[in-house]
Amino acid sequence: MPSAAAANPASPPAVQAAMSLARESRLLASSASILGWDQETMMPSGGLEHRARQLAQLARLEHGMATDPRLGDALSAAEAEVASLPETHPDRVNVRECRRDYDKATKLPADLVEELASVASIAQHEWAEARKASDFARFRPWLERIVELNRRKADCFGWDRADGERWDALADSFEPGCTAKHVSGVFGPLRERLVPLIEAVRTAPRRPDGRFNDHPMDIDAQERFGRFVCGALGFDFARGRLDRSTHPFCGGSHCNDVRMTSRYSERCLLDGLGSSMHETGHGMYEQGLDPAWISTPMGEAVSLSIHESQSRLWENQVGRGMPFCTWAKAQMGRHFGTAADGFTAAQVYEAANMVEPGFIRVDADEATYNLHVMVRFELERAMISGALEAKDLPGEWNRLYKEYLGLTVPDDRRGCLQDVHWSGGMIGYFPTYTLGTLYAAQFFETAREAIPGLEEGFARGEFRALRDWLNANIHRQGRRWLSDDLCRQVTGKTLGADAFLRHLEGKLRPMYGI
Amino acid sequence: MPSAAAANPASPPAVQAAMSLARESRLLASSASILGWDQETMMPSGGLEHRARQLAQLARLEHGMATDPRLGDALSAAEAEVASLPETHPDRVNVRECRRDYDKATKLPADLVEELASVASIAQHEWAEARKASDFARFRPWLERIVELNRRKADCFGWDRADGERWDALADSFEPGCTAKHVSGVFGPLRERLVPLIEAVRTAPRRPDGRFNDHPMDIDAQERFGRFVCGALGFDFARGRLDRSTHPFCGGSHCNDVRMTSRYSERCLLDGLGSSMHETGHGMYEQGLDPAWISTPMGEAVSLSIHESQSRLWENQVGRGMPFCTWAKAQMGRHFGTAADGFTAAQVYEAANMVEPGFIRVDADEATYNLHVMVRFELERAMISGALEAKDLPGEWNRLYKEYLGLTVPDDRRGCLQDVHWSGGMIGYFPTYTLGTLYAAQFFETAREAIPGLEEGFARGEFRALRDWLNANIHRQGRRWLSDDLCRQVTGKTLGADAFLRHLEGKLRPMYGI
Repeated sequence: MPSAAAANPASPPAVQAAMSLARESRLLASSASILGWDQETMMPSGGLEHRARQLAQLARLEHGMATDPRLGDALSAAEAEVASLPETHPDRVNVRECRRDYDKATKLPADLVEELASVASIAQHEWAEARKASDFARFRPWLERIVELNRRKADCFGWDRADGERWDALADSFEPGCTAKHVSGVFGPLRERLVPLIEAVRTAPRRPDGRFNDHPMDIDAQERFGRFVCGALGFDFARGRLDRSTHPFCGGSHCNDVRMTSRYSERCLLDGLGSSMHETGHGMYEQGLDPAWISTPMGEAVSLSIHESQSRLWENQVGRGMPFCTWAKAQMGRHFGTAADGFTAAQVYEAANMVEPGFIRVDADEATYNLHVMVRFELERAMISGALEAKDLPGEWNRLYKEYLGLTVPDDRRGCLQDVHWSGGMIGYFPTYTLGTLYAAQFFETAREAIPGLEEGFARGEFRALRDWLNANIHRQGRRWLSDDLCRQVTGKTLGADAFLRHLEGKLRPMYGI
Repeated sequence: MPSAAAANPASPPAVQAAMSLARESRLLASSASILGWDQETMMPSGGLEHRARQLAQLARLEHGMATDPRLGDALSAAEAEVASLPETHPDRVNVRECRRDYDKATKLPADLVEELASVASIAQHEWAEARKASDFARFRPWLERIVELNRRKADCFGWDRADGERWDALADSFEPGCTAKHVSGVFGPLRERLVPLIEAVRTAPRRPDGRFNDHPMDIDAQERFGRFVCGALGFDFARGRLDRSTHPFCGGSHCNDVRMTSRYSERCLLDGLGSSMHETGHGMYEQGLDPAWISTPMGEAVSLSIHESQSRLWENQVGRGMPFCTWAKAQMGRHFGTAADGFTAAQVYEAANMVEPGFIRVDADEATYNLHVMVRFELERAMISGALEAKDLPGEWNRLYKEYLGLTVPDDRRGCLQDVHWSGGMIGYFPTYTLGTLYAAQFFETAREAIPGLEEGFARGEFRALRDWLNANIHRQGRRWLSDDLCRQVTGKTLGADAFLRHLEGKLRPMYGI
């Protein structure tokens, strides 16, 4: 007897039956998600070992539910029932997407899933040690195993042997329908214009004022200010939280219980504020999903790139804009007393938009960030295709950092050992960061045309029109469209780099006098 | 493939196999327990409805594991293997207690378990709202459902129709072997000596100085002071937390992750401090369980009354004693500045020991507390037997408060809506508070004889000897003995009210000059 939410009473009976089963694994995953959040925010250190057992048990139970043959049968019955409905009808979408999930889950043999989990668990530990010591040799055998297991995984999923490549099958888990060819097609033109833009910035006649990025502000006041800003943007604290963790994330259970975290830096308010606004974009996407479709695909996010478009949009298009900086600066007195009195909104704006090539992706600015992502995409693509061996990773990494960012990587700790993703077994994930950045720019251009006086409103602390627009056009669509179809639906165009480059150049040219 | 901790390698093979299965439901319950804690401390209000579904699903899965016929078979095989071991051998205890749990669990149908979990989750919310508004009518339908479900539950368990009553079957879940007749037999004589003692106090010639109970102290400082005191008593914050909630409790997952809550009152430090010390007694019992037997009966608490004996002992025998008050008073300057400078340790002691009949159980003093418990015991016993209908609860509640405590209850918020237990589906629970109070007094008398200079140590902030004694004699015993057998083992006597009455009279007679 399923205990998940009652099926939608308007759905036909076989769809209801299938959704009742499909909801079970999602409900269990939502409990595991709270335990995951708890582990990062609340759990005492003594709880770690037992928590690993709790999460392993829940993952095992969840996998059993997601691959239950009764679910497969129920979906077959439901498919017959929805065949005559329009393709974007919620019932048809739910059945189609549950079938996608079910087929993916059942294609992986249990022993491969287990081996990946166990190798990733050791690899993460080895990676952490290797990073500390900047010792790639220590991590290399684990990377080799992860690449090999991911190649097997891709072959289980299957991929287009005529026109595609193995990497596509891996990316599909994060970004349904994504191919390396498509990503290259978007990233190539972006890089062609981004590299000279960054070069122009580097040799620019004017230096913006970055002093606000090195100015002490009380940490607790920063946290309160962050909550105030997130609330003003539209995050609903009756249906979510914002806490602290080492690495900011957005988790939680479902649209009515969204758990975001942020972190704060003593000498850079904008670090923590940017993190908080970023997570708020994720959080408002989650809160904006349709509660009527909770625990079904129509109540779920499309993909990682669309999720990232929401976080980037609030972090970059809104948070790094002059109107927002004007409003935010005016609010600081209430939260920080006189601590920010020596700065103008223009100085806050300039500090928020400094461009400075660096080694570390998570510290990168809005412009160079995408070059970090491109390096990772090319390298993981090559490792999965077999064109690059793990042993040659550091050399290739360093060569690309020189070529794209003009930097000489000093050691692997600040080079190919910096990210957790590969050690965690995740290949095909990185490009979603930049795809999301591009979607954000394209969505925002459309919103600005659709909503008169949008940015003037930001300067007065009015963000509701944008949130409502995103809610109607993106959040409430659930998984009705794949990423690029949604993009065409919303913006009238397929994804490209133009909107992002316009956004970037529009800011950087005057700021740097180029 | 079980994901719980590996079975103890020293146990014989059939015991190991049975324990591996028995651990599964306990592991899942430990996850549910974190979600329960989260609901009371961290969850945004919007999460309530979905949380009820999550907990219902986990309860259903847990029930399925706890009643898995393979577990029954494994226990049968293990029983043969341990038959020749001494009765208190850990393996024999584990098998015996898992059999008790299994037999109880298999008597409850899954749909009843799930309904109870889901009704209780909503009823707790409705109760909280009803209490706020002092609106019994809002809570009544939920109470009715809970009583009805509990009657069904009792009938599933079965009870002694010749010599017992339905309530016994419910109490057994909290206090194995407990009957209403037994409770009456202990409560009757206690009430006979307690009511006149309280009456003597009421008309006593001397009034103690209670001014410290109405003296403002900063709430955040109270919380920090509470954490400091709990740590000094021996609670390990690397394996637990202390947060705030409406109703203080001690939950969490297992001995290495114990979640306590407390609450604080602006004008009465001792309110919050008493709560925190009380929960610390529970928390140290949990932390004191043997980690080698985690998720098996040898690593679990005996019963609620023995659990309560630990909380009451630290709250009352320690916390309300002059030696502790002397030490605690000396620590206040560091936490509160000059806020407590106007008071002596003797004034703190007198404030901590004031006897004043009042409406609220959790605010009650050490003497009248037990009368609050007796009222609840009689009422829940009558609701379960059918002698009392839910609609008549407020009237009967108020009648008994007049009779036992001489009080006219002004409204249901301060009457029958004050406690969370019934809304949480727990009937048969209340008597364990007073049973625990009596065990506490009896244990403490024994500890005082066993440990020279015990109370003198408290005055110097030395609590370790007591904690170690409790750990060895009680915590590390797990479920080796039932409550009263443990009591005989530790104190040489069966449970009675004498030690408690000696403790109480020894304080109150000099303080009130009676």
